[in-house]
Amino acid sequence: MGALDEGHFHEELENGVKLDCIKLDCEEEPITTAIEDAVKVLLQGLGEDVNREGLRKTPLRVAKAFREGTKGYRQKVKDIVQGALFPEAGIDNGVGHAGGAGGLVVVRDIDLFSYCESCLLPFQVKCHVGYVPSGQRVVGLSKLSRVTDVFAKRLQEPKRLANEVCAALQQGIQPAGVAIVLQCLHIHSPDLEGSFLDSNHQAWVKTLVCSGSGVFENESDYLWGDFFNLLKFRGINVDKTFMRHSSDQSWCPSQSSSGAKTSAVIESINQGMVTAVASIIRSLGEDPLRKELIGTPGRFVKWLLNFQQTNLEMNLTPLNPDVEISDKEKQMQSELNLSFWSQCEHHLLPFHGVVHIGYFGFEGLTSIGKSLLQSIVHFYGFKLQVQERLTRQIAETVSSLLGRDVIVVVEANHTCMVSRGIEKFGSSTATIAALGRYSTDPVARERFLQGIPKTSTSEV
Amino acid sequence: MGALDEGHFHEELENGVKLDCIKLDCEEEPITTAIEDAVKVLLQGLGEDVNREGLRKTPLRVAKAFREGTKGYRQKVKDIVQGALFPEAGIDNGVGHAGGAGGLVVVRDIDLFSYCESCLLPFQVKCHVGYVPSGQRVVGLSKLSRVTDVFAKRLQEPKRLANEVCAALQQGIQPAGVAIVLQCLHIHSPDLEGSFLDSNHQAWVKTLVCSGSGVFENESDYLWGDFFNLLKFRGINVDKTFMRHSSDQSWCPSQSSSGAKTSAVIESINQGMVTAVASIIRSLGEDPLRKELIGTPGRFVKWLLNFQQTNLEMNLTPLNPDVEISDKEKQMQSELNLSFWSQCEHHLLPFHGVVHIGYFGFEGLTSIGKSLLQSIVHFYGFKLQVQERLTRQIAETVSSLLGRDVIVVVEANHTCMVSRGIEKFGSSTATIAALGRYSTDPVARERFLQGIPKTSTSEV
Repeated sequence: MGALDEGHFHEELENGVKLDCIKLDCEEEPITTAIEDAVKVLLQGLGEDVNREGLRKTPLRVAKAFREGTKGYRQKVKDIVQGALFPEAGIDNGVGHAGGAGGLVVVRDIDLFSYCESCLLPFQVKCHVGYVPSGQRVVGLSKLSRVTDVFAKRLQEPKRLANEVCAALQQGIQPAGVAIVLQCLHIHSPDLEGSFLDSNHQAWVKTLVCSGSGVFENESDYLWGDFFNLLKFRGINVDKTFMRHSSDQSWCPSQSSSGAKTSAVIESINQGMVTAVASIIRSLGEDPLRKELIGTPGRFVKWLLNFQQTNLEMNLTPLNPDVEISDKEKQMQSELNLSFWSQCEHHLLPFHGVVHIGYFGFEGLTSIGKSLLQSIVHFYGFKLQVQERLTRQIAETVSSLLGRDVIVVVEANHTCMVSRGIEKFGSSTATIAALGRYSTDPVARERFLQGIPKTSTSEV
Repeated sequence: MGALDEGHFHEELENGVKLDCIKLDCEEEPITTAIEDAVKVLLQGLGEDVNREGLRKTPLRVAKAFREGTKGYRQKVKDIVQGALFPEAGIDNGVGHAGGAGGLVVVRDIDLFSYCESCLLPFQVKCHVGYVPSGQRVVGLSKLSRVTDVFAKRLQEPKRLANEVCAALQQGIQPAGVAIVLQCLHIHSPDLEGSFLDSNHQAWVKTLVCSGSGVFENESDYLWGDFFNLLKFRGINVDKTFMRHSSDQSWCPSQSSSGAKTSAVIESINQGMVTAVASIIRSLGEDPLRKELIGTPGRFVKWLLNFQQTNLEMNLTPLNPDVEISDKEKQMQSELNLSFWSQCEHHLLPFHGVVHIGYFGFEGLTSIGKSLLQSIVHFYGFKLQVQERLTRQIAETVSSLLGRDVIVVVEANHTCMVSRGIEKFGSSTATIAALGRYSTDPVARERFLQGIPKTSTSEV
């Protein structure tokens, strides 16, 4: 509970608006405008034309998303919990515990997202909340979800998020104790120069954190055992040894990058972008000079610069020119599950997934094909993009190199479908481009599509 | 597309408020008050004291939930789609299709909930949307989700929901075609007199519906095959034969109940409750005389009456009195996965799941035990309840019959965690009551808890 001193906490409880009456993003236009201006600086820093139609409203969309995603700063826990505490008789303490006294209550698998305070990217959270009622009163179950959301919708770090939710529920409900378990999933920083292009590279950084108050302050209390047993029914395995091994190291992958070199580069080239991000943080009501936020603008800019506008010509010789090989010699070839990362140009939020490519070629091409195709996928991924365009660009480029008959399927998870009030956690998007024979021959297309294995691009 | 005539549709597009600026439930107090008054009539009809603390704010909560759950009546599709259509070059039509022309775009696994127009209970929807761009423009992906939600947040029926979403996207985006697949899950009507108490009884009614416009109007078009193939990667199996076999029969389980007898009972006893439900429907902006809604108030009242307040004394002789059997002869016994249904008294929404019971008894008791315990679980389930109280009541009653050492775990899905703007689709709640030895002996409790198999109470 160390991350939260009492004074700070009271301020958070008092300083907000009533949750049920929140008006989204229409008000406080000066804040929205300030963020929009900063986003324009970022887009220009990426070499983009801010008046291009796909980008014209991006500053407004980004401003709304940031404000929606940090609305927790403007919410009061007190307003949520008050009026949702219900008298509930408990079993006589001498006999046992249940109901309003001593019986554990657990809500599992609450889906949340939050913004990483180290790099400003959203991260996903599966939140499990337990508490032990006392004083013969219980809280409405949905309030546990609402309170977690108040603290998730801020610039956060998993351990602090767990501690703040725990402290807020302890103070709001005044139960015998509160226990929080968070399973967090952070998108990995792509690193064009590093191991990222390796297909075995992990797409996600995972962490699991716990926080306990009251009877749960004692990590060896039997109630933690009960809590973990109730999580186990849902396939969530935590054990007590974990709690003693949580480290203080930052989990954010941007922290582990080669910091010195990067910040030198950013300071020399993009001080304007860094200043713009700092101004966004200030507009959201945070202090950009807070210890944990001081390097955040630089890290966010470094992330963005992966998606800088480039006109790099791919200097590749066609490997399978149609003129040289007769159609009879060609066979249907597939490269499946080529991973990619991209940045949605409408929301400046990452999307990522896999690309499946089918083409007709001769047998010997396969070994050359895979690394070539992965390079093409990365080239078109590392841009401000939309999935439909990415799909088309990959298909056209592959076609120019490997022959006219090409099919491309892109499957992706879009961060913009999770954040920004949409919160469709399990959704995924698929797009198809079909060229030449694949566009006219349903049987060829069907054969390719049926070769794609059942996958789950959702990772939580 | 037959369910939607053009005139009606235009009205829906024009008659609404701007989505991004919606103020939730704080305004239009007269409507909220009217619903509150109707809910009070319903609570009184169930024999409840509307001033009891747990129920005091239930009318307001129910009114807010109904208004939130039907806010689609007040939203305009035009406002959502406009400003989110982006120019996107397509591949030359002679060569193939992708990008802004002819390449299929699919968003899968959009979680929604809707209210069944036949019985007013919420049902869950997994929605899959596909469209084929034309005119070199694409729509922002999240808008597909927002538009589906506009039509889900109404009193609905799966086939009409699919048709309305399809028509709205066709008109809003003007693509080459739109395809919708919905997987819907409706809670089953409990029937105290019928097969419901059978533990093999299905808890859910499932249905799958499709709708297509433009190029998808032809059910045998190859594009349907592409769409189904893209769903298959996510484990969703639909095949074309299904489309020819969709029936016109209502899927709502309340429609198949013994209608004649029931409506006679309701008309004689609860005309006031029926009138109250009709007035709620009118307050939500619907016409209670619309053909599909005419029997809805009666069916909703029939559902509610399952949870009528009763003071029925269970006349059961203790089977395992502590005095007669020494502790040494007793062994730990478990009855797992006893199903239950209940109605949340805070929101008048169903919650349901399984109960696990542990006790100490002699071997011969087991065969008597199961049906007795299932009866106890049903007795306390069929009430306006909260899960914490249900858990305690089951534990206390089992204790009075089978001896003092009892542990009860209740695992439940709460509809109120899905509807009402919370929309935490995967969440589930677990509660524990521990009496006698189970409250003092962590080892006994641990042994019982570890015997509970990993389950998933989520069914979608």
